[in-house]
This record gives sequence, structure tokens and C-alpha cells, in this order.
Amino acid sequence: MTAMSALQDEMKRVKERVDRVILDELLPKASPVKEVDLLYKMMRDYPGRPAKGMRPFLCVSACKAAGGKEDDAILTAACIELFQNWILIHDDIEDGSELRRGFPALHRAYGEGLALNAGDALHARTWEALLQNRRRLGMPKTFAVLQEFSKMVNETTEGQHMELGWVTHKRWDLTEKDYYEMCTRKTSWYTVASPCRLGAIVAGARPGVLDALKEFGVGLGVAFQIQDDSLNLVGDQKKYGKAKSDDLLEGKRTLMLLRLLEVASQSEKDRVIAIMNKDRPKKTEADVSFVLSMMDQYDTIGYARKRAAELLKEALVTLKKIRFRGDAESRADLAAFAKFAVEREW
Amino acid sequence: MTAMSALQDEMKRVKERVDRVILDELLPKASPVKEVDLLYKMMRDYPGRPAKGMRPFLCVSACKAAGGKEDDAILTAACIELFQNWILIHDDIEDGSELRRGFPALHRAYGEGLALNAGDALHARTWEALLQNRRRLGMPKTFAVLQEFSKMVNETTEGQHMELGWVTHKRWDLTEKDYYEMCTRKTSWYTVASPCRLGAIVAGARPGVLDALKEFGVGLGVAFQIQDDSLNLVGDQKKYGKAKSDDLLEGKRTLMLLRLLEVASQSEKDRVIAIMNKDRPKKTEADVSFVLSMMDQYDTIGYARKRAAELLKEALVTLKKIRFRGDAESRADLAAFAKFAVEREW
Repeated sequence: MTAMSALQDEMKRVKERVDRVILDELLPKASPVKEVDLLYKMMRDYPGRPAKGMRPFLCVSACKAAGGKEDDAILTAACIELFQNWILIHDDIEDGSELRRGFPALHRAYGEGLALNAGDALHARTWEALLQNRRRLGMPKTFAVLQEFSKMVNETTEGQHMELGWVTHKRWDLTEKDYYEMCTRKTSWYTVASPCRLGAIVAGARPGVLDALKEFGVGLGVAFQIQDDSLNLVGDQKKYGKAKSDDLLEGKRTLMLLRLLEVASQSEKDRVIAIMNKDRPKKTEADVSFVLSMMDQYDTIGYARKRAAELLKEALVTLKKIRFRGDAESRADLAAFAKFAVEREW
Repeated sequence: MTAMSALQDEMKRVKERVDRVILDELLPKASPVKEVDLLYKMMRDYPGRPAKGMRPFLCVSACKAAGGKEDDAILTAACIELFQNWILIHDDIEDGSELRRGFPALHRAYGEGLALNAGDALHARTWEALLQNRRRLGMPKTFAVLQEFSKMVNETTEGQHMELGWVTHKRWDLTEKDYYEMCTRKTSWYTVASPCRLGAIVAGARPGVLDALKEFGVGLGVAFQIQDDSLNLVGDQKKYGKAKSDDLLEGKRTLMLLRLLEVASQSEKDRVIAIMNKDRPKKTEADVSFVLSMMDQYDTIGYARKRAAELLKEALVTLKKIRFRGDAESRADLAAFAKFAVEREW
């Protein structure tokens, strides 16, 4: 098993390769029309900020595990990262976020209209970049990549709709199962399942491998999101890069919150819901502290982390059974990543 | 030459074919997850509202003029319409618009976050739908369509950036040339040039035809936008479907406004700019009336319409010279459309 620091080095190495492709080859730098330069600057902003690069790493590792070559997967890995960047721009607008990767969110720096449009521009460039796969992978494989990419974006927008809809419509009649449904769509597909599957498609993997990677990715993606939600509540903001307790301010239905509503007394539950239903600017520090203290009292963060640990265990069993044709080291990298996803502090 | 009513019948006929493809085949209707049904409803909202269907008509007509079959172009024509719908959702958010096609803008009906996300969902579905061309057109032509589509979206987001940037940064040091640069990107590509070129690509037209269609489309697109801007100022709101003088409220740099700033006295110019720089909610009815009266006094709408008429004339000369291999009737349809674009009242 790769040690955690070796995993981080490997993620960094792949991220650097992908960044060069994104910033030097895929994204435009200068336009003959001066005003458009600001658009290009905005499109290059999030991709230029520090990020873990988990998704490109998964794409490349799954490709190698399935018997493919890293070089064949780099462009697709770069496109996954591009996708991540435009969806974050829009996500930050939708959630009213202040910070992204330790710096002001794009719409805070440039205004909502220009940021929304820059996200669209980046979205379109992502598809354009995917077409370049044709040169190296040929047409049929490029089509298969485009098809999986479509699936990934569709799932993500549906998950985002579910989460936003719950907040917008003040929905609290939600179960743990609802959370998993939302989270599978919002997070699992684009964070784990599709990056792995895209790498495997590039490698020419059989449908059985793709099915197993879906199972691995869906479970691990939910575990990843649970850990992300705990870091938002109790993590070190400097490491994590997002504003602390932002999810509470945004009214997100996290597992720890849904669990709290299940186990708290009726009066506590009423108070928590009343707080969570307030618009973001109306939530006070005391409001946030109260919800956190309730979570602490009922140890709902501990409960959620236990669920994440179970999901990790299942994902590792699934991973072990996959009939990969490639190198064993890359399979080990995927396993190391799975642990990292649930145990990380950033 | 096709008479205006025959043109409208033909646009309606193509629009109905395209609508059936969009609403019955391309867009999802029901999800196993109940909450997602609202997303699907939102994605189907703008496509279900009445619209002229100019772009599908251009795509189909150019395909037939270039010697192709209508059936081969219908899916691509539907995708252009899908593109138009998602970009309108985002455009309405960016511009703070109230109405679209005579009904409340999507973000007014459902909130900004959900509407923004529905636009993204529709955007992704557009690319997915384009992949289906493979069955009928084969892979190389499908790639060529995807490539032109990328060009179209890139141009549109750049034009949108220019226009929004001018408003956001209160820029008034703009010339007529700046307006054409912006308008070519914001409007011409996706309204005329790419719809025609996509139809011609489907028909297998030679590069010379595509180049000529670019020239035709760029000029006519600007003329179309000038007419659209005049309708916004002096048109019949019921026919036109957008809120009257919305462009003035949004602070748009139209040709009639830039012309006014060129010919008005310094004090008039200062007053117009002071009004236009106000945030939308602060603009009064008296403000709007003053700017309209100035435009009337200097006949800048007449000036802009004269420019549109000149652009139309040039576009018709370009069209006449194109070496199409297909039917003469479709070429005549394109010419009839060109006149309609500049003479229409809706």
C-alpha cells in the first residue's frame, strides 16, 4: 500500500502535468479584442489556484490499473479538472459562497454576471478540449469519453438541483436515504466514479470493469462528501480553504444535520430547523454555535464518520475484486486514495 | 422570392419538427427521484414557450441549399435551439431580466440558484444530444458539427462578456466599431453564421461555402441585433415578448445609444451617461423617457436602422454569390429570412 505522503506526491505530480495542459494548451491567453482578455483571465483564475487534483489522479491511476498509458489519459484528466472549475464557479454563485481555495470566490471578485458567463465559457471549452482526444485515441474512444462525460455532468446537475431545492423549498422531511441519493448525484459521479471510468475507457476496459468502478465510485464518493462536510464543521480552515461552517450558513442538508434532527428532542429539533431556515445573512454566530453544540452533544459528526468508514470498507472490497489488466501499483494507488478521501484533513 | 407569410409558415413548420425532437426525444420527462422532476420541468420551460425558431430554420434551409437533406439537419437544428434556451436562462440572470417570451424569466419563477443550475443541465444535454448525430451522419461529420458548435459557444460567451463588462465597468469610450465587434460575437455567430454553417456542414459543403456563410452570417447577425434593439425601444411589447425599454434599464450599449453620445451636446451626453450608469432599480420612468426623447430628437434609431439596411444589402450580395449545390428555393428562403431579420416587428 502506498503511504499517504507517496500518494500526495503522486497526486501533485499528475496535477502538475494536467495544469500545464490546461494553462499552456487548452485555455486561451490573449484575444485580439482587449476586453476579452479579462474573460480569459477569469477562466484561468480557479484553474490557477491550489487544488488537490484528486480527479485527474483517479483518471490516470484507473487508466494505468486497467492497462492503459498515462499519456493517453492526460487530456481527459485535464478536462475533468476543467469541468470541476466551471462547476465550482457556478456552485459558488448558487450557494452565495465567500471563499474558494482560500481566495475570494470568482463572483465576489468580478460580480455575478461576469462570473456566471465565465463559467459558461469554461464549460464550452471543456467539450471543445475533449474533442482533441480524437488525435490520440481515435474517434470511437473519443465518443465513449464524451458519452461518459455527459453522464457525469447530468448526474452532477441533478444532485445540485436536489440539494439547492431542499434549501430553497425549506424541505426537512428527509431521510438518510435521500441524502445518499443526492450525494451520489452531486458528488460521487464527478469526484470518483466518472474520473475512474473515464481512465478505464481510455484504457479500453471491458464493461464489467466499468460497472465495478461505478460501484466503487458511488460508495467512496458519498464517503468523501461526508468527510468534506465534517471538515467544513470542525476542520482547520487554513488547510481546508473554505470558510468555516459555510455549509450551516448555506443551509446544507448534511448527514450530521439530518442525523441530529432524527435524535434530538422535538424542541431542539424545532430550534435547529428555525435557525437553518433563516436566510444566510440573518444567521448569527450564536445560531451556528448552537447547532454545532447540538451536533457535539449527540455526536452526530461521529455517527456520520462511522458511516463514511463503512462505505470506505465496502469500496475497498469492491476495488479488490476488479479484474484489472494493468499494473498492481496503480490499483494500490486507488486504494490509498480511498483511505485518503475519508481520513484527510484538507 | 418567398413572400413574408410563406417564410413564416416555413419557420413554423421547421420549429414544430424541432420542438417534437426536443420535447419528445432529447429532454427527460420523469426521474425515479421525485425532486429531480422539477429540474426536468425547468429544463423544458423555455423550450416550451412560443419562439420564432429562426435558427433551426436557417440550419435546415442552408442544409438544403447546400444539397443536403432536411432530415439530416433536424437533430443539429434542435441542438441549436437547445443552446439558445440555456443561454437565455443565463442571460436573463446576468441582465436581471423580468420577462422572456412573454412570461416571467426562469429565475423570477424559481429563484436564481435553481435556474442557473437548470441552464447548466440544459447546456450539458445539448452536447449529449449532438453526439446522437453519429447514427445518421457518421463520426467525421458529427465531429465537424461538434467543432462548429464549440466555435459558436466560444464566440457567444466572449460577446456576452464584452457587453456585460461594458455595463459592469461603466465603459462609455466606445465606438461603432466596438459595437460591431461585440455584436458579431454576442449575436451573429449563434443567430445566423453557425446555424447556416452547421446546416452546410451536415450537407457536406466545401470550405468556400462555409467561409461565405460566415460573411453572410456576421453581417446579417449585426443587422438582426440592431433591429432587435429598435424593437426593444419602440416595438409593440405584445408582439415582441420582452419588457419594453429593458435594454435601457439594463444599460446596454446599443448602436442608437452610442450614436446619441456621438451627436448630442456635451451636457446632454453627460445627462444620458449619468442615467445609464444608474443601477437598474434606480432608473425612473422619467430617466427612460428622457433618453428616448433624445434618441428621437437626433433620430438615432433611424440612423441605426439605416446601418441595418446597408448590412442587409451586403449580406444579400454575399448570399447571391455562394456556390450552393442544392435547391434554389432554399437559397430564396435564406434571402427572405435576411429581409425578415431586418424588417420584422416581432
